[in-house]
Amino acid sequence: MTDLRTPAVIVNFKAYSEVEGDKALRLAQTCQEVAERTGVGIGVCPPATAIAKIASAVDVPVFAQHVDPCKPGAATGRLTAQLLRGAGAAGTLINHSERRLRLADIGAAVDMCRSNQLTTVVCTDTASTSAAAASLRPDLIAVEPPELIGGDISVTDAQPEVIENTVTAVRRIDDGIKVLCGAGIKTGRDVKRAVELGAYGVLLASGVVKAADPVAVLADLVQYL
Amino acid sequence: MTDLRTPAVIVNFKAYSEVEGDKALRLAQTCQEVAERTGVGIGVCPPATAIAKIASAVDVPVFAQHVDPCKPGAATGRLTAQLLRGAGAAGTLINHSERRLRLADIGAAVDMCRSNQLTTVVCTDTASTSAAAASLRPDLIAVEPPELIGGDISVTDAQPEVIENTVTAVRRIDDGIKVLCGAGIKTGRDVKRAVELGAYGVLLASGVVKAADPVAVLADLVQYL
Amino acid sequence: MTDLRTPAVIVNFKAYSEVEGDKALRLAQTCQEVAERTGVGIGVCPPATAIAKIASAVDVPVFAQHVDPCKPGAATGRLTAQLLRGAGAAGTLINHSERRLRLADIGAAVDMCRSNQLTTVVCTDTASTSAAAASLRPDLIAVEPPELIGGDISVTDAQPEVIENTVTAVRRIDDGIKVLCGAGIKTGRDVKRAVELGAYGVLLASGVVKAADPVAVLADLVQYL
Amino acid sequence: MTDLRTPAVIVNFKAYSEVEGDKALRLAQTCQEVAERTGVGIGVCPPATAIAKIASAVDVPVFAQHVDPCKPGAATGRLTAQLLRGAGAAGTLINHSERRLRLADIGAAVDMCRSNQLTTVVCTDTASTSAAAASLRPDLIAVEPPELIGGDISVTDAQPEVIENTVTAVRRIDDGIKVLCGAGIKTGRDVKRAVELGAYGVLLASGVVKAADPVAVLADLVQYL
Repeated sequence: MTDLRTPAVIVNFKAYSEVEGDKALRLAQTCQEVAERTGVGIGVCPPATAIAKIASAVDVPVFAQHVDPCKPGAATGRLTAQLLRGAGAAGTLINHSERRLRLADIGAAVDMCRSNQLTTVVCTDTASTSAAAASLRPDLIAVEPPELIGGDISVTDAQPEVIENTVTAVRRIDDGIKVLCGAGIKTGRDVKRAVELGAYGVLLASGVVKAADPVAVLADLVQYL
Repeated sequence: MTDLRTPAVIVNFKAYSEVEGDKALRLAQTCQEVAERTGVGIGVCPPATAIAKIASAVDVPVFAQHVDPCKPGAATGRLTAQLLRGAGAAGTLINHSERRLRLADIGAAVDMCRSNQLTTVVCTDTASTSAAAASLRPDLIAVEPPELIGGDISVTDAQPEVIENTVTAVRRIDDGIKVLCGAGIKTGRDVKRAVELGAYGVLLASGVVKAADPVAVLADLVQYL
Repeated sequence: MTDLRTPAVIVNFKAYSEVEGDKALRLAQTCQEVAERTGVGIGVCPPATAIAKIASAVDVPVFAQHVDPCKPGAATGRLTAQLLRGAGAAGTLINHSERRLRLADIGAAVDMCRSNQLTTVVCTDTASTSAAAASLRPDLIAVEPPELIGGDISVTDAQPEVIENTVTAVRRIDDGIKVLCGAGIKTGRDVKRAVELGAYGVLLASGVVKAADPVAVLADLVQYL
Repeated sequence: MTDLRTPAVIVNFKAYSEVEGDKALRLAQTCQEVAERTGVGIGVCPPATAIAKIASAVDVPVFAQHVDPCKPGAATGRLTAQLLRGAGAAGTLINHSERRLRLADIGAAVDMCRSNQLTTVVCTDTASTSAAAASLRPDLIAVEPPELIGGDISVTDAQPEVIENTVTAVRRIDDGIKVLCGAGIKTGRDVKRAVELGAYGVLLASGVVKAADPVAVLADLVQYL
């Protein structure tokens, strides 16, 4: 059954041309279709401009790609936790490698999201920054080893210890925090291996978004979950 | 008649609690109502999460509060000109005082918006930064003297020369660029005076957004346009 | 005896006009004088432009106010750990409230400093960001509760629990990391109380730098250490 | 004769390992030697930690690589115009491609430098951002076309029009501002051609700093000036 709070798979739409205009809605519908067919919790992470439409039209948890650590007020060009919640978001990524935040701002953002019932996924790059993020008490941590981002290397072949070390380090701080593997996931076998190493799920992007047949790719990726 | 490309009045919704959820749509409808009644071009500038709904439901030009100077692609948490255009935006603010950009990024953002048919409003703080911005060829420049932002002082009482100097400096570079007065506008009389000093219109925010009766306030503000 | 690696008192010179030109050197000599007289380890933290001269002329540990998380190379306007070390610095502040860094950059900066034998003092704002910083393994953590920075309130009167909670949270992660109290220290009694609450020492600034008689103020502050 | 205010050649030491410790001083002495021998004005641009020593020991104009647009005060990790002046700097780069600033901050930085008798060199990337920078009235503008930075292509072969267009655009705003060519300069012939195209001089970096024989390289570069 789809877990609206902490889906095991989150598809990050980024700012790819494949999700401009109505295409984001269609990709979200694809994710819903695979989620319903397979029973795997799949969340979507569209650009901010597409959150409201997807949240009202599709039955999948919608995550923002970023939240600004600002209170409601004079904050032009910023998206508060309240604005995301008001648009229908279920949660948000925080500190993605393409949108890094300062340490104090991550702490503030997590707190603001918690007060607004948004699930938080803090992105990190190493086992030690994952441990650091764990002290801020997010719901999930997505570790993205920089050397695997955007490449063709599979994390489970190249660096299985990154996942294991991250899971161990995070559990030492707070064993209620779930770890996602956020890079180096190419196939269903990678997902399976990540879960065997202790990950709760995966954060995906181009492999799904830019796929010629996203349904097939996504179905393959979640098959062992 | 409402000018969809360069409205004389733009209402910046910022991230105020008054525009969370469906409230942004209602404020946009208020702006449309006053625009139709008075014949003054009024644009709205909602949070990114509200652009698509307003653009599809309300007949006013919709401006984003910010655009990231990024190409479509792996740019998590960023809004490209293409994404804004795909959501139905007519234009965008760039370099607002609450969301400053680097000089090279302003130039890149203006160029990207131009290629995507988005009207550009570059915000500046002095006559000399306005002249600098003019060399980047935006459609409009909104000058916001820092000492007037958020205060109770009227620009036309306190610093009429800021508007005059900005208009002169911008025209010297490119007399096709329109100047908005972006701070210190409290009443219709201020708007009138700003226009007499050479401004094309005004960029408003809290005075309208936080008003008990936005229709009355907005109608008062645009009465001499 | 002066501890060159982890002094119990660090005086942050900031960018005050009181430390321009040769005045930074004279203030460092004042710190040395009090350190020698009292036997308390006192480090100085001058602007980057003054590090080399102080390090060669005064026998106190010299800390930089900031290090950039960059490798040696094409990094104009950046100060690497190697450059600081080459100038004679013994260590550096990282992530001061006036110079915040992104989480991943704090981790990278701490690692780069460790490789270059620089003592690291990571500044934080709450007990939870202090715990987060502890996972990055700096030598010291200086907690600066934002509500006390630059104010007249004494931390030990207003918020003794911030120190206690921070010390507890940091020790839980790594009990080899020393905690400095970085704000709200006005008198020797405050220093004494901070130490009783578990702090190793204090990070001082305006109270010393802008004092009419820095020797007297500093001597008062360190009297119970 | 060496022009202390606006040298025709500025050597940017960046953060290369070749300028760590005392090596920055020796490279500055090399620049002085070539300047005296050839009569060409050569400025040096060392890391901030080396400014004071070079300024007191070598008779060349010393430029900082960056200035923070801050007033003297509580600005930890920032270098004000006053601190640079106090360390003996004659001027500073502003907005280098490796240390970009926001538009309003460039304006503020230029003004603060002018008040502190520091020569300003604003770096830009295109003819239009150069025109923008010219409205802020720096002493010099160094244009660095991004496609030429760090590459092996010579500006005068690949893009002579960038220099011409920049010179034209800057003169249109203020013909007292001198233009430096900041990338794509490999040989004395390139320098000669840049000057024929209207440049006042050049901003150099790795070609000199990382050279096996900096004296020979620098002497070759300035031979036609």
